[in-house]
Amino acid sequence: MARVIVDVMPKPEILDPQGKAVHGALPRLGFTSVTDVRQGKRFELEVPNTDAATLDEVREIAGTLLSNPVIEDFEVRVEAGA
Amino acid sequence: MARVIVDVMPKPEILDPQGKAVHGALPRLGFTSVTDVRQGKRFELEVPNTDAATLDEVREIAGTLLSNPVIEDFEVRVEAGA
Repeated sequence: MARVIVDVMPKPEILDPQGKAVHGALPRLGFTSVTDVRQGKRFELEVPNTDAATLDEVREIAGTLLSNPVIEDFEVRVEAGA
Repeated sequence: MARVIVDVMPKPEILDPQGKAVHGALPRLGFTSVTDVRQGKRFELEVPNTDAATLDEVREIAGTLLSNPVIEDFEVRVEAGA
């Protein structure tokens, strides 16, 4: 078995209200170092192997089911040693 | 500037309804390779540097604001080349 990670983040030009809400809360909690926060989704997909056909299928899943291509970008990577 | 990634995932023993919902939808869309799906959150935090004090602050933010330690685990890492 292998694990493939799909990271889905809002496109840079898209407003990220969740990230803004987290960033706005930090000073009230005494945290001052962080200058910006963006929030997205992380998926861990278990697959039998990481051959080309399987990774193609994961990319298709990522682009259709796991993300909204209009407002989100996604990245697919195989987790080392999973 | 540097970018620190915080990945928040449900603890393995915790039911992950979102992951189950995605996994359940895959066969209907013709996807058959994926045997399990888990869904979590990904945060990208922009920080001025990655010294020990800053990373300690990010870990504290992750453990208090970004995750629920009762049901979630988190991992903090510095994004290479950000």
